[in-house]
Amino acid sequence: MKNCLVGQSGGPTAAINASLAGTIAGVRLSTNYDIIYGLKHGMEGLFKDDIVNLTEIFPDEESLIPLIKSPSMYLGSCRYKLPEMDEDEKIYEKVFEYFRVHEIKAFFYIGGNDSMDTVKKLSEYAKAKNINDVYIIGIPKTIDNDLILTDHTPGFGSAAKYVAGSIREIEIDNSIYAVKSVNIAEIMGRDAGWLTASSVLAREDKDSAPHLIYLPEVPFSKEKFIEDVKRQLEIRDHVVVAVSEGIRDENGAYISVDPDKKDAFGHEILAGAGKNLADLVSEKIGVKTRFIEFNILQRAASHMASEVDLKEAYKQGRNAVSLSEMFRTGIMVNITRKDTEDGSYEVEYGAVPVCDIANKVKNVPLEWITEDGCDVTEELIEYVKPLVKGEVETIYKDGLPVYLKPLP
Amino acid sequence: MKNCLVGQSGGPTAAINASLAGTIAGVRLSTNYDIIYGLKHGMEGLFKDDIVNLTEIFPDEESLIPLIKSPSMYLGSCRYKLPEMDEDEKIYEKVFEYFRVHEIKAFFYIGGNDSMDTVKKLSEYAKAKNINDVYIIGIPKTIDNDLILTDHTPGFGSAAKYVAGSIREIEIDNSIYAVKSVNIAEIMGRDAGWLTASSVLAREDKDSAPHLIYLPEVPFSKEKFIEDVKRQLEIRDHVVVAVSEGIRDENGAYISVDPDKKDAFGHEILAGAGKNLADLVSEKIGVKTRFIEFNILQRAASHMASEVDLKEAYKQGRNAVSLSEMFRTGIMVNITRKDTEDGSYEVEYGAVPVCDIANKVKNVPLEWITEDGCDVTEELIEYVKPLVKGEVETIYKDGLPVYLKPLP
Repeated sequence: MKNCLVGQSGGPTAAINASLAGTIAGVRLSTNYDIIYGLKHGMEGLFKDDIVNLTEIFPDEESLIPLIKSPSMYLGSCRYKLPEMDEDEKIYEKVFEYFRVHEIKAFFYIGGNDSMDTVKKLSEYAKAKNINDVYIIGIPKTIDNDLILTDHTPGFGSAAKYVAGSIREIEIDNSIYAVKSVNIAEIMGRDAGWLTASSVLAREDKDSAPHLIYLPEVPFSKEKFIEDVKRQLEIRDHVVVAVSEGIRDENGAYISVDPDKKDAFGHEILAGAGKNLADLVSEKIGVKTRFIEFNILQRAASHMASEVDLKEAYKQGRNAVSLSEMFRTGIMVNITRKDTEDGSYEVEYGAVPVCDIANKVKNVPLEWITEDGCDVTEELIEYVKPLVKGEVETIYKDGLPVYLKPLP
Repeated sequence: MKNCLVGQSGGPTAAINASLAGTIAGVRLSTNYDIIYGLKHGMEGLFKDDIVNLTEIFPDEESLIPLIKSPSMYLGSCRYKLPEMDEDEKIYEKVFEYFRVHEIKAFFYIGGNDSMDTVKKLSEYAKAKNINDVYIIGIPKTIDNDLILTDHTPGFGSAAKYVAGSIREIEIDNSIYAVKSVNIAEIMGRDAGWLTASSVLAREDKDSAPHLIYLPEVPFSKEKFIEDVKRQLEIRDHVVVAVSEGIRDENGAYISVDPDKKDAFGHEILAGAGKNLADLVSEKIGVKTRFIEFNILQRAASHMASEVDLKEAYKQGRNAVSLSEMFRTGIMVNITRKDTEDGSYEVEYGAVPVCDIANKVKNVPLEWITEDGCDVTEELIEYVKPLVKGEVETIYKDGLPVYLKPLP
């Protein structure tokens, strides 16, 4: 038999299940493969021999529809980091022995930067050991949009749509009282400001929100921030600020960070840049201030997913299967935006070597941020605009969205 | 001429513009009235002579559709409290002089408890002064659902839908890691727990979120809370808690203030109830904990409004106009749930004397809260269930919801 294995890893998005669905569909339509198994909780599921038969669970195209439309990760996630090959070769032997036993000929790993690190290490091991019959392919996802060598990442468009849509609702809510006010919305994105920058799509004319946008790409000054807000309050009564959770001062220190807390990858845990700035406005300017954190809803709100995003996520899953059939390995599938004559949005599906991608971060280019550091340019708007387009028909029952829950 | 005047007041909801639209439609269809004017920023607009001609702005039924579907308040709001008649009679004279000059024969005021206080005072003044040609009618709205003598209030159903839908998304997001976790969602409602209680609709079976629900109606004990969470963590890995912002201890003190915590300057740290409880879980139990505040999105998220709610809000606006034509005054329009044979949801539109309503609060009945104080009963579920039903087709352009903004 020739089987496939797929896993999901990292933080959830509204599109990662669409990529899983595309992968399952790709295997089902393939004449090369028999069964596709799903790893529960990413690599952890492999070490615990905790897998499910996805070919059985999703027997046809129709059964995949609820999966495509559901947020989070059907297979569960992990934050597992594979050690370096020379640190613990036994782990690698265990992985490839597992592949051999289950006749796994292709392994697809859907995730962000850390997951691509796993794809890179496994494919490098296979190469070093001359294992030529397992194709290892990464499928990107991250609401942060911070992977290099792909135009954008699945999950980003849906998160951007939620963020921009919610900024519109906040602006309208905010503008009804005849007293001056400042609303500060904190948006996810530790290192890259893509999602915060996308809040600009809420802007219908030059007067609409967001009025100030702060990204981690530009060193943040509290003094300048207060001046920026004061200037805005001279122009209008109601100011909406979009701020990335990852903003840092000129010394690289997060505007709000708990130095004692670290996650499994040794990353600092961020909390409360927006709260910090709201307190600052309240103290220094004294107007009515409110802090709103979009929190996990920005990555989980499938009821407001972008159709473009989910379609592309699905197609990338399909593409990964096709590329494995062409004996490609050690790659991440990617999206390239085509140069069209009329400027319309069209993409091409391809792949790049995963070693060129893992552990690198794609930031918002500085030339897409305005010189005053508190807004973005037309180029950025043109880049993000097509990614949020189209609505996905949510399945409602009794007035509430119905989702496929992750496996227990 | 015989004109009408309408104003909006208090906090925004997703349905208050639907009530405004119903009122405008009612006046347009009436043969008794000529023009309907809108007060900008509620009573403040009257004192500043800041009104708009709504008959001109919304010339037909179609023009009202974007208004119905937009959150917040088209006319703007205020937090104005009318003084008692014997404190400042001049203000009352000014109001009725304004009515006389603009030939206002009916005044509709859409709002919550404070707005009903205004309706009550104005109608009592009219009665005392034998002013018989102005009909003063309140139209309820509040996401808190805390007005008495009406089955429920417009705005509540849409907020409940957003809260329950978001709890579903949080639960799914939350359940993907193989480590125990507690997510605490803080929901609006300072005095009444209706909205927090509605989170129960997210529950698809006995194992689904929310697993614990805390309302302001029951005195809150931190010790019991920790025991409740521990018990839940024995049953399941991922616990979702819905907590009202207004929970108080047995002495009536809000949980949002932690007397033991001080900042670097020795000042008390004010935080939300949810944040406070998340810190407590983290400290006492030590599992992964996250705090989510729905914040203003729960009242502004028109993209997830309840069809039942918006329809009822619209009809209550229509009903207010009809009742004014029957010479009714000093009333608030209301909704009564019918006793149907098959238990299906049907309502009747009526009215009650506003003096019986103003300044009173309808709490969740204690018999609708389980004995252990951390869940709600089947009766509550049956009560809320019909109110979130039906979806409203949001107007999207370029992938984002388009709303009618409040007047500048």
